[in-house]
Amino acid sequence: VFARVPTLRDTHPQLDAKAQLLARAASGVSFRNIIGEDEGVYRAVLTSSAGDERGAATAFPRAGPRHVLFFEPSQVVAGIVTCGGLCPGLNSVVRDVVKTCLDVYGVRRVLGFHGGYGGIYGKPPSELTLESTRGIQNLGGTVLSSARGGFDADKILGALEQLGVNQLYVVGGDGTMRGCAALSAAVVKRQIPLSVVGIPKTIDNDVDIIDVSFGFDTAVEESLRAVRAACVEAASSVNGVSVVQVMGRHAGFIATQATLASGQVDLCLVPELPLIIDGSIMDVLDHVVRVVRRRGHAVIVVGEGAGEDVLGQSTEVDAGGNRKCVPVGPLIKDQMAARLTAAGLGSQVRFIDPSYMVRSVPANGRDSVLCLLLSEAAVHAAMAGFTAVCVGMVNARTALLPVDLVVATSPRTVNALGRTVERVISQTNQPYDYAAVEARAAKRPLVPTTDHCPPE
Amino acid sequence: VFARVPTLRDTHPQLDAKAQLLARAASGVSFRNIIGEDEGVYRAVLTSSAGDERGAATAFPRAGPRHVLFFEPSQVVAGIVTCGGLCPGLNSVVRDVVKTCLDVYGVRRVLGFHGGYGGIYGKPPSELTLESTRGIQNLGGTVLSSARGGFDADKILGALEQLGVNQLYVVGGDGTMRGCAALSAAVVKRQIPLSVVGIPKTIDNDVDIIDVSFGFDTAVEESLRAVRAACVEAASSVNGVSVVQVMGRHAGFIATQATLASGQVDLCLVPELPLIIDGSIMDVLDHVVRVVRRRGHAVIVVGEGAGEDVLGQSTEVDAGGNRKCVPVGPLIKDQMAARLTAAGLGSQVRFIDPSYMVRSVPANGRDSVLCLLLSEAAVHAAMAGFTAVCVGMVNARTALLPVDLVVATSPRTVNALGRTVERVISQTNQPYDYAAVEARAAKRPLVPTTDHCPPE
Amino acid sequence: VFARVPTLRDTHPQLDAKAQLLARAASGVSFRNIIGEDEGVYRAVLTSSAGDERGAATAFPRAGPRHVLFFEPSQVVAGIVTCGGLCPGLNSVVRDVVKTCLDVYGVRRVLGFHGGYGGIYGKPPSELTLESTRGIQNLGGTVLSSARGGFDADKILGALEQLGVNQLYVVGGDGTMRGCAALSAAVVKRQIPLSVVGIPKTIDNDVDIIDVSFGFDTAVEESLRAVRAACVEAASSVNGVSVVQVMGRHAGFIATQATLASGQVDLCLVPELPLIIDGSIMDVLDHVVRVVRRRGHAVIVVGEGAGEDVLGQSTEVDAGGNRKCVPVGPLIKDQMAARLTAAGLGSQVRFIDPSYMVRSVPANGRDSVLCLLLSEAAVHAAMAGFTAVCVGMVNARTALLPVDLVVATSPRTVNALGRTVERVISQTNQPYDYAAVEARAAKRPLVPTTDHCPPE
Amino acid sequence: VFARVPTLRDTHPQLDAKAQLLARAASGVSFRNIIGEDEGVYRAVLTSSAGDERGAATAFPRAGPRHVLFFEPSQVVAGIVTCGGLCPGLNSVVRDVVKTCLDVYGVRRVLGFHGGYGGIYGKPPSELTLESTRGIQNLGGTVLSSARGGFDADKILGALEQLGVNQLYVVGGDGTMRGCAALSAAVVKRQIPLSVVGIPKTIDNDVDIIDVSFGFDTAVEESLRAVRAACVEAASSVNGVSVVQVMGRHAGFIATQATLASGQVDLCLVPELPLIIDGSIMDVLDHVVRVVRRRGHAVIVVGEGAGEDVLGQSTEVDAGGNRKCVPVGPLIKDQMAARLTAAGLGSQVRFIDPSYMVRSVPANGRDSVLCLLLSEAAVHAAMAGFTAVCVGMVNARTALLPVDLVVATSPRTVNALGRTVERVISQTNQPYDYAAVEARAAKRPLVPTTDHCPPE
Repeated sequence: VFARVPTLRDTHPQLDAKAQLLARAASGVSFRNIIGEDEGVYRAVLTSSAGDERGAATAFPRAGPRHVLFFEPSQVVAGIVTCGGLCPGLNSVVRDVVKTCLDVYGVRRVLGFHGGYGGIYGKPPSELTLESTRGIQNLGGTVLSSARGGFDADKILGALEQLGVNQLYVVGGDGTMRGCAALSAAVVKRQIPLSVVGIPKTIDNDVDIIDVSFGFDTAVEESLRAVRAACVEAASSVNGVSVVQVMGRHAGFIATQATLASGQVDLCLVPELPLIIDGSIMDVLDHVVRVVRRRGHAVIVVGEGAGEDVLGQSTEVDAGGNRKCVPVGPLIKDQMAARLTAAGLGSQVRFIDPSYMVRSVPANGRDSVLCLLLSEAAVHAAMAGFTAVCVGMVNARTALLPVDLVVATSPRTVNALGRTVERVISQTNQPYDYAAVEARAAKRPLVPTTDHCPPE
Repeated sequence: VFARVPTLRDTHPQLDAKAQLLARAASGVSFRNIIGEDEGVYRAVLTSSAGDERGAATAFPRAGPRHVLFFEPSQVVAGIVTCGGLCPGLNSVVRDVVKTCLDVYGVRRVLGFHGGYGGIYGKPPSELTLESTRGIQNLGGTVLSSARGGFDADKILGALEQLGVNQLYVVGGDGTMRGCAALSAAVVKRQIPLSVVGIPKTIDNDVDIIDVSFGFDTAVEESLRAVRAACVEAASSVNGVSVVQVMGRHAGFIATQATLASGQVDLCLVPELPLIIDGSIMDVLDHVVRVVRRRGHAVIVVGEGAGEDVLGQSTEVDAGGNRKCVPVGPLIKDQMAARLTAAGLGSQVRFIDPSYMVRSVPANGRDSVLCLLLSEAAVHAAMAGFTAVCVGMVNARTALLPVDLVVATSPRTVNALGRTVERVISQTNQPYDYAAVEARAAKRPLVPTTDHCPPE
Repeated sequence: VFARVPTLRDTHPQLDAKAQLLARAASGVSFRNIIGEDEGVYRAVLTSSAGDERGAATAFPRAGPRHVLFFEPSQVVAGIVTCGGLCPGLNSVVRDVVKTCLDVYGVRRVLGFHGGYGGIYGKPPSELTLESTRGIQNLGGTVLSSARGGFDADKILGALEQLGVNQLYVVGGDGTMRGCAALSAAVVKRQIPLSVVGIPKTIDNDVDIIDVSFGFDTAVEESLRAVRAACVEAASSVNGVSVVQVMGRHAGFIATQATLASGQVDLCLVPELPLIIDGSIMDVLDHVVRVVRRRGHAVIVVGEGAGEDVLGQSTEVDAGGNRKCVPVGPLIKDQMAARLTAAGLGSQVRFIDPSYMVRSVPANGRDSVLCLLLSEAAVHAAMAGFTAVCVGMVNARTALLPVDLVVATSPRTVNALGRTVERVISQTNQPYDYAAVEARAAKRPLVPTTDHCPPE
Repeated sequence: VFARVPTLRDTHPQLDAKAQLLARAASGVSFRNIIGEDEGVYRAVLTSSAGDERGAATAFPRAGPRHVLFFEPSQVVAGIVTCGGLCPGLNSVVRDVVKTCLDVYGVRRVLGFHGGYGGIYGKPPSELTLESTRGIQNLGGTVLSSARGGFDADKILGALEQLGVNQLYVVGGDGTMRGCAALSAAVVKRQIPLSVVGIPKTIDNDVDIIDVSFGFDTAVEESLRAVRAACVEAASSVNGVSVVQVMGRHAGFIATQATLASGQVDLCLVPELPLIIDGSIMDVLDHVVRVVRRRGHAVIVVGEGAGEDVLGQSTEVDAGGNRKCVPVGPLIKDQMAARLTAAGLGSQVRFIDPSYMVRSVPANGRDSVLCLLLSEAAVHAAMAGFTAVCVGMVNARTALLPVDLVVATSPRTVNALGRTVERVISQTNQPYDYAAVEARAAKRPLVPTTDHCPPE
C-alpha cells in the first residue's frame, strides 16, 4: 500500500505543464541522488511464522529532490511560521529551511512570520536571509517567536496571497498540524497554487508514524540533568525522596526514556499507566517507602499528564485548544511526604520541575542533524509541488506523510503493555497492575503507539 | 586590633607542654611557609582624606601551619559533619579535610558522621580513608548526607568522647555555627581537649567577614543557566515575561550577581529592597510592562526572601530553627500576569525555580580551590590547638575567625545603598525609591554587609 | 532469509533437555513480552517499481527474553571484559549487564576482567555487584580498564574454565569481534557450554548491519564542542582558519555528522573521499581560500583517516593489530597556512584535536538507553544459550547478529556516492570530483555502508 | 603613598574649566555612590610583629563615577579595540563598555575597531549600538576580531583624529598595554584631548597588581574539563599516563589552579619551577613511574612555558613581539613513554592540548561580573578625563592603575617559594628541589608575583 500524498501538479495541471527539470541550483549543487516517484519506505519490518507484517504494510514516499519541480525557484516566495510551545531545534529548522531555499534552490525570498498562525495576518513578516539567520541554530527558542492559537484560514490565506507566498512551511504540534490540514483543504477549495508543508514539532514525541520528533532527544538529555540533581538531593538527605516532573501531557516518552537512561529511578509514573493500583494510589508510594527504608533514599520521575485516574481531567483549555492537564507532581510530593511521615521516616521530599529549562536549550547534535534532514525534505517536497504533507523519519529515512494521516493518528502514546514499559518496571521494580493496565488500554481513547517508538 | 582566637593551649597547659614541633608529616611534606602567631590580615583596605579606615581595623590571624602543634598527629581521631541544606563543594571539603588529615599530617583516623548534628550521636560513623573519598569531589551533594537540627551538646560530646574524637570539623550555615559556638562553650566548661573548627557553608553567601563562601560562585553559575532559559522563553513568546526565583532567604547576593552576570535582566528583586515603592508594588511591575511594550519581552529575577513588606513573615520554622520564608516568585508571577492582561498584552508569564538543580551540582573550579584552602586551614588550625574558630578568606588570604564573632555578625546582606545595588539599578533601569530604602535600612535589624562583598 | 544464530542448545543437547522455563526472576519481574524463536526483523525497508528490496532481504532474530532458558540462573557465572579504545557508554554497559544478570535473572556471580582480553588470564578479576557498580554509568571510561591486543584463545578459555565462567560478555571493536568469533570457534571445538556474546563498540560507528553503535551519538556531540570552538577561533581572527580533526580511522561518520549538525563548516574531509581532486590537493584548499576571502574566516573538519591518497598508508600497527593511520590534520594545517600566505591572507590557522576529550565523557541520554537495550539483549541471548552472537539495533529493534557476519561486513564506511555526502557537499559547497569518487569507490576494498546509516 | 594617575584635566586646563557636574544620564540613572578624588584602596593587608606591611604601602585611586566629568557625554565618540589572543569575556567587555557609554552616560557614538591595533587605521570601524551588541556576551571570542601586532602610534592617532574619537578603550595583554603606554605618551606630546584607557586581558593571569584578570577563572574551569578527561583516560588504561598541556607562557597560574581544583593530579610542571631536579629531568618523571606502579595510572598537568631549563628559549617571536615558547607537552609525553617502557610498564601515554577549546568559550558567571565592573570602571575613568590608565580589581575593589606601572611590573609569575606551590607539592607529592628553586628565583629576571595571587 503506497500512501498517497497530495500534489499541486494534480490540481493545477496547466502549471504542471510548465514544470521545470531540476536546474543547477544557486549554489552550484545539483543532485545526483534523485528520488523517483515510485520510491517508498515501509514502516513494518517485523516477521514471524504467524505472518510477515510487511505484507499489507503502508509504504510512504521517500523524501528528497525530484526530477520535476512544480515551482520555478526564482518565482518562489516562501513563508515559515513556528507555532505552539518551545522545543529544541526550532531555530535549526528556520535556519535550514532558509538555507535550503536560498542557497540550494535559489528561491526569491523567504519570509518569517512572528508569533504563530496569528502572526501571519497580524504582524509584518521579516525577510529571512543567509546572513540574518547565520548561527541562530546555536540559540534556544525561536527567533520568529511562537504562540498557540490564532488559526483563521481565511485571514491566513488572505495575508499569504497579498504577500505572494506560494510555499508555507508550518512548524508545530498536533494542534498546528490540524490547522495545516484545514488550511490545505481551504487551499484546494480556492484552487490556489500554494504548497503547505508541515514539520511536526512535539517535545513529547507524541506525533505518530515518525521514528522520533526533533527536539525530543535534547529534551530527554536536559530532563536527565534534573533527574541527576534529584538523585543527589535524595541521596544527600536522611530518607530523602525527590520528585521530578517532566513534560508529557498525553504520553510518557520523556519520562520513560529519562528513567531508562538514568538507571537511578525508583518509580516512573506516566499518563499511560494508572496511578491507582489495587484500588489505591498508595501502592506505588508504598513501594517508594520500602525503597527508602532499604536504601535511605528514592527518586520518582513523573510525566506531567500522569494521574488522570486520580486527578480527573481539567476543564481548562489553552489558546491552542488543548485541554490543560492538572499537574500531578505536587500531588505526588504531598502524598509522598504524608506516607513517609506516617512511616516514621521524616518528610524530606523535594519537587523539581525543570520544564522551561528543558524546552529552551538549543538542539543537541543529533537533533540538529534531524532538523536539517527534515528541513531539506520539506523544501524538496514543496518545490516538487507536494502539499498537505508532513515530513518525518520512517525507519531512518526521510519520508512524506499525508498531513491528514498524521492528524488522525496523533497523539500517540507509549504502549502500556509493551517492552519499554516492561523495561521501566524491571529497572524500578515498581508495582504494576497488569490487569488494570489492560483494562485501561482497552477503553482509553488514545491512539496506540507505533510499536518501535521508542526503540525496543 | 588583633582578633583573639581561643586555643586549647591556654585551657590545657599541661598538654601544651607536650606539644611537638611540626614533624615531617606522613606524606613527606614539611612546610616551609610557617605562619607566625603574630601574623594577621586586615579587612580594611580603604583610605580617604576623611581618614584611613585601616587605623582602628581588626586584623585576623592568618591561617596556615604552625611551628608548634597541640596534637600529636598519631593520637588524633578527627570527625567531620555536614549540616543544613546542600551547597556545591561539600564533598570537596570532606575529601580535602580527609586528605590533609591523613596524607599531610598522618592523623590516626577520620570519622564521617551521617545526617548532620543528630547523626553524631544517632548513627554509627563511617571511617573515611583516602581510598573511600577518592573522586567524591566530582559529585554533587554530600556523601555524609546532611540534615537540619539535631543539635544537642550533651549527646554530641558524649558520643565524641566515646569515639575518642579530639578534633571536630563542622560544615554548616549560621544556625550550624551557632551550634558550633555552643558546643565550644560546653567543651571549655567540661575541660575536654577537643578542638571544634567551623567551615562556614552558605549558598546565600550571607556569613559575614569572609570574602565569599564556598559554593556561592557555583550557585551563581547554575542560577545563570535558569536566567538564560528565562531569556529564551520570554524572547520566544509574544509579550513574554519570565520570572526566575533564585535562592537568598535574607540576602540578595545570588540574585544581584546573576543579574549583573546575565546582562539581560529587566527587574531584580531582593530581600534588601522593598517591593512596595511609592505605596504600591505595581511600580516595579509597571516598569516591566513598559519594557514588554517597548521590546516585546522581559525577564525578572527574584531572590526567594524578597517581598517581606508585601507578604509578611512566615511563622513557620524549619528543623534548624530558621524562619521559613514565604516564596515570593509565584506572587510576582500572578501579579505580573494580571498587570499584562490589564495592559492588553496577553498573559505569557512563566515561572522558573531552579533551586534544587543549583544546590546539587559539584563545585566549579574556583570553589574547588576555595574548598581546599579552607579545609587545609581548618586542619592546620585544629592541629595547632585552636578551637571555637571558623576559617574563611579575608582579602584573599585564609584567616582564623572567632566563631562567636561570625555568629554575631551574620547573616549579612547586600548593602541596599551600595554600589552593587546601584549597578543592578543601572543595568535594569528599574525604579528605585531611595528614600524608602534608606528608611528601611534604618530600621531593618539585619547586619549590614561587609562593604566589599560582593566585589565592587 | 532468516539469519541463523548459533546456540548451545544445538551443541549440548543433553544440557538443553534440562533447560528451564523462564522462572520468575530474582527481582520479581517476569516477562510478558517473550520473543518467539521465529520472530525476526528485516533490514530492508525500501520499495520502488524496480522491485521491493524486502523480497530477498535478511531477517535477524529479534532479541529479548525467551521462554526456554539454556542456563539455570543460579548456576551462571558471568564474565565481562572491555577491549580496545575508550568509547562513551562502556560503564553503562558494565552496569547494565551486571544489573540484568543479578537483579533480573538472579545469576550467581558476575566477574569483571581488567585490561581487555589479556586481563582474562593475566589479572585476577573483580566480583561485580549491584553495590560496586552503582552510579558508574555517570562516569566516563571503563571501571574495568581497557586495552588492545592480548587475545589468546587457549589462555582465555583456560582461565574461564578455572573460574567456572559460563557466559562471557565481550565489549569491543571489530578487532575484538574477530577475537570473539575465534573464541566462539574454539569453544565449539572444545564442546564447552560457554556462551560468548559480543556487544560491538566503535566510536567511529563503523560496525555494519546495526543502525548505530553506542557512544557514537555522544562522540558527535562532544566533537561539536570542538567544532564550535573552531568557529569562534576562526571568526575572531582576521582571515582565520580552524582545522578540527575528529575520530574516524576508516569511516567519516563523526566528521560528516558533526559537519551537518554544526551548519558552520566550510570543508569536510573524510576517508571515503579523495583529497586529491583534479590532480591536486589544492583544489579543496583553494575552496577554503575563496571562503576566507569572501567571509573572512573558514572552518575545516577532517576525519583522522582522511587523505590516504596523499599520505599513503602507515606501516605501523597498534597492539590490536590495526594499521595506524597517519594523522592528516597537521598536514592540512600546514598546507592551508602555506596557501593563505601565498594568497596574501596571513596564516592564522589553528589546529584542534579533541579526541581524548571526546572518548572520555559519559554516555549521553540516548546512548545510555541504547547501552541498556543492548546489555539486556546480550543477557537475554546468553541465558537462552545463544553464542557467537552480537547484539545490535536493526531498524530500532534489538536483534541478534551472527558474530561471523558482523566481522565479515565491517568496517563499514560512509557511502561516498550517497545522500549524506551529498548533504555535506551542499552545506559546505566544497568541490567534489564525482568521477574520482566513483573510480575510488570501485577499487577501494572497504565494505559499503548500510545505506541508511547515517539516517538519510 | 597614593598612586598618581594621569588626567587630561591637567594637560588641558582650558577644557577642564568647562567640565560639567555629572548630569542625570541618558538612562535616567544618576549615581549616589560618587567616588572622591582622595579615595584609595591599598594592596597591602598583612601585619606581623615584624611590622605592618601597610605602612609604606601604595594606595590606588578607587574607580567609579566622579563628580566632575571632563567630557560632555554628547560630545564623546568612543572607540574600542581588542588585541592579542582570545580570552573568555572579550565580548562581555565590548557589550558592557557600549552599554555604559550609551545607556548610562549617553555618549554620542561608540566605534568598534576590527582586528587589533592594526585595524584602527587599516579597516573601517563598525558603529556599535545597544541593539547590535545585544546578547554578544553569551558568545565566545570577540565580535571585533582580534590580532597581535599592528601597533603604529602615528597611524592610530591619525585615524582616531579623523574619526573624532576622544576616548579609546584598549583590551589586551601586556604587549598591548605597552602599546597603550606608548600611545598615551604620544597623545600627551601632541596635546590631544584623547583619553586612553586599558582593560588588561591575560588568560594567563600574569598582569601584576590586580587580583585576577577577567577570563582566568573561566579558563581554569575549561582546563579542568581536559584534566578530568585525562584522569578518565589514564584510569581506564593499564598503567596509563595522561599529559595535559594548559596555557601559561611565563606563569603557571592556570596549571597550579587546575591542579588544586582537580585533586587528581600527580605532577604539575610550571615555568616557575625547574624541570631539572638533582641534575636530571628524570626525577619528576620517576615520581610518576612510582605512582603508576602503586596506583596503576597517573596524570600530569604542564604549563606550556615550563621546561625552559631543558628546552632552551625559542628564538621565534610572534606578531605581537612576544617570544614564542617551545611547547613542553610533547617532550614530556615522549620522555614519559620512554621511562614507562624502561620500567616495564608499557607505554600508554596520552597527550591532551585543549588550549583553543579553553580560549573560545564565553565568560562564566564570575568573569561576566568582573567584565562588567571593569568596563564600567573604564568608562567612569575616561569620562572623568583619566588617561594612560588601566582598570583592575585590588582587594575586591575596582581601582585605577597607571598603565606605566602595570607595564613595568608584568608579567608576574607564581611565587615559586610561596604557599600555592607548597599546596601543589602537598597535593601531588612530587619531588621539589627547594635549593634549586631558590637559586633559580634569585637569578630569574621575572617580576615576582603579588603575594596574594592566587588567593592563599
